[in-house]
Amino acid sequence: MKIRFVKSSDYYILSPLINKWWGGRNMSDMLPKLFFDHFTNTSFIAEISGEIVGFLIGFLSQSKHNEAYIHFVGVHPKFRKQKIGKELYYHFFKVAQQNDRHIIRCVTSPVNKTSIAYHMKMGFVIQTGNKKIDGIEVTANYDGQDQDRVLFAKKLI
Amino acid sequence: MKIRFVKSSDYYILSPLINKWWGGRNMSDMLPKLFFDHFTNTSFIAEISGEIVGFLIGFLSQSKHNEAYIHFVGVHPKFRKQKIGKELYYHFFKVAQQNDRHIIRCVTSPVNKTSIAYHMKMGFVIQTGNKKIDGIEVTANYDGQDQDRVLFAKKLI
Repeated sequence: MKIRFVKSSDYYILSPLINKWWGGRNMSDMLPKLFFDHFTNTSFIAEISGEIVGFLIGFLSQSKHNEAYIHFVGVHPKFRKQKIGKELYYHFFKVAQQNDRHIIRCVTSPVNKTSIAYHMKMGFVIQTGNKKIDGIEVTANYDGQDQDRVLFAKKLI
Repeated sequence: MKIRFVKSSDYYILSPLINKWWGGRNMSDMLPKLFFDHFTNTSFIAEISGEIVGFLIGFLSQSKHNEAYIHFVGVHPKFRKQKIGKELYYHFFKVAQQNDRHIIRCVTSPVNKTSIAYHMKMGFVIQTGNKKIDGIEVTANYDGQDQDRVLFAKKLI
């Protein structure tokens, strides 16, 4: 497996794939082209034999100078459980550290139990919210009406 | 009118308003909370008597060091034709210049003739696309399947 930086033209390969990888959920609207043009130095692609099998779109917070943010991570369903996600996260942590960022943030949906468990395993801590769902702290309407989110933070040493 | 920087809590006022200001089109999905957390030093709110009447969400390109990007601009329908948009753009141009950015980019939908005319009046130049609609250069599927866009750039001197 090869990890490389995102390039603009990756958008046209990835955007149609995303909804498939997420089992038909409409996810590609969350990932406009701008992320593939303006955050290429903190966003990564995983390839096996030239095929894109995973990606991570993240950025250095522009106004919170100690923080970096992971917006979107996806792994091809046929290539899961092969530590591709882990490698992508580690590349992002490294570039964040190189830029003196020591807090990594991301959010996920409370229904996405796999994602919640995954982030906890990766050392993220769930931030205090304003309600609990199945014992998990959740911030209600965080990303708009009925768009509850679980908020994660990880400190890099 | 007062122009100030965006703050995180503005999201919860603006997000429900956006679809109303756009006449019912679902626009708020294009503006996740992250823009109100991590790009507060290049994003602006226009207020009259404490009421939000306009906003501009923009950022300095993280990987194109001479560029800045305007993601989203909105003005309350009752407050249009009062140069609120112009003031918001000028504030963004100024902060871009202070950060040594000399190219401002943004995109709009080909159906949005008002937006196209507005950007041309503001000194933006339409970039060469790969087809023409009503004589205007358009980039097909730029922001995903059937999401054609008109691409604008403005040079700051």
